[in-house]
Amino acid sequence: MPYTYEYARPSLTVDVVIFGLDDSGLKVLLIQRGQEPFRGRWALPGGFVRVDEPLETAARRELEEETGVRSVYLEQLYTFGGVDRDPRERIVTVAYYALVKLSDHRIQAATDARDAAWFPAASPPKLAFDHATILQSALTRLRGKVRYQPLGFELLPARFTLSQLQHVYEAILDRPLDKRNFRKKILGMGLLVELNEFEQDVAHRAARLYSFDQKRYERLAEKGFNFEL
Amino acid sequence: MPYTYEYARPSLTVDVVIFGLDDSGLKVLLIQRGQEPFRGRWALPGGFVRVDEPLETAARRELEEETGVRSVYLEQLYTFGGVDRDPRERIVTVAYYALVKLSDHRIQAATDARDAAWFPAASPPKLAFDHATILQSALTRLRGKVRYQPLGFELLPARFTLSQLQHVYEAILDRPLDKRNFRKKILGMGLLVELNEFEQDVAHRAARLYSFDQKRYERLAEKGFNFEL
Repeated sequence: MPYTYEYARPSLTVDVVIFGLDDSGLKVLLIQRGQEPFRGRWALPGGFVRVDEPLETAARRELEEETGVRSVYLEQLYTFGGVDRDPRERIVTVAYYALVKLSDHRIQAATDARDAAWFPAASPPKLAFDHATILQSALTRLRGKVRYQPLGFELLPARFTLSQLQHVYEAILDRPLDKRNFRKKILGMGLLVELNEFEQDVAHRAARLYSFDQKRYERLAEKGFNFEL
Repeated sequence: MPYTYEYARPSLTVDVVIFGLDDSGLKVLLIQRGQEPFRGRWALPGGFVRVDEPLETAARRELEEETGVRSVYLEQLYTFGGVDRDPRERIVTVAYYALVKLSDHRIQAATDARDAAWFPAASPPKLAFDHATILQSALTRLRGKVRYQPLGFELLPARFTLSQLQHVYEAILDRPLDKRNFRKKILGMGLLVELNEFEQDVAHRAARLYSFDQKRYERLAEKGFNFEL
């Protein structure tokens, strides 16, 4: 059954920049397009917003379809509405970005054996539409935000070493950090719980594991506490 | 001529939170609604996005219709897409905020003798739709941003005293600032040009006027210079 309106309406979509982290750095999940336009080109996962669906629900639906995970850090990025961004018709897209833990086994299961793959976030293949602009905008936001909000933990497993944590920040900021200074600042935030557990199966001396105190973070954030790194 | 689509489409609008500053503090420009829903209630200026119109163009069009000014600071804020935010139908709105100079005479001319008026931004009348949420979100963004980007100048005339500048920051942050500390920090940014001009027609000792060095700001911002206040 078709729908009729007095004036022409733009189409509304959501696109999601899904970031993950592995040993080689910050990654982004891309989908290879099976049809025109841009057939064969890689693109951000996304789709149309249903008329009865809140925007964030649509973004979480896309995210779950592509990664199998539901409960992750998701934030609205920006709305892109250039008139020529899609050759078919006027499509306005509300872009989100998500941070997922690549150690989550559901992610492997959902993205394996499909036209989805992880690419280095800073050097992706050529992207469809204006998705390169959207990805760049998400990277800029993430880099700006991680300096005053402890987002790095969203990319790590529940228990991690301080070296792993430093690696997250270095991957996001794309530059090396001084180890001593980093540890002083990150421990000074008072958000890490020192565990009585250590790395397993490592050749070097096993490092201590830490966890992130989410409750304490929320309490302090409410009081306007500053987490600048 | 009606337009027909296979699936129902949300309507797309822009709404603009227009901030200005006068002696009594930070103000927001509101429009009184002449029709249902929310007839008689105050609301943010806004309207439908034309199918061939970029989003920012639509926001600038609304802004110009309401204030008579074109070239002002305008930034996309957030897209609000709750399914029940308008009782008529699903309307997704891309919200922007603008900073205008209330000393601009065109603004008085455009808003005089119409159902538009300036209200204290922190204590507006009851607003239509979810506009109270949008206004609050704009205030939060402005307060966060002004701490690391010299936005305050956008609300001032081209020549101003340091007291006026401090007043801008106090109005946005909604708290008093230490005069000595403020002057040290703001002069330390190196963005102010000391003029050989002084206030006119004041009872107290006339203070020196300054102007903002926009070119220098852009050069330094490009280099990643930090303007934290």
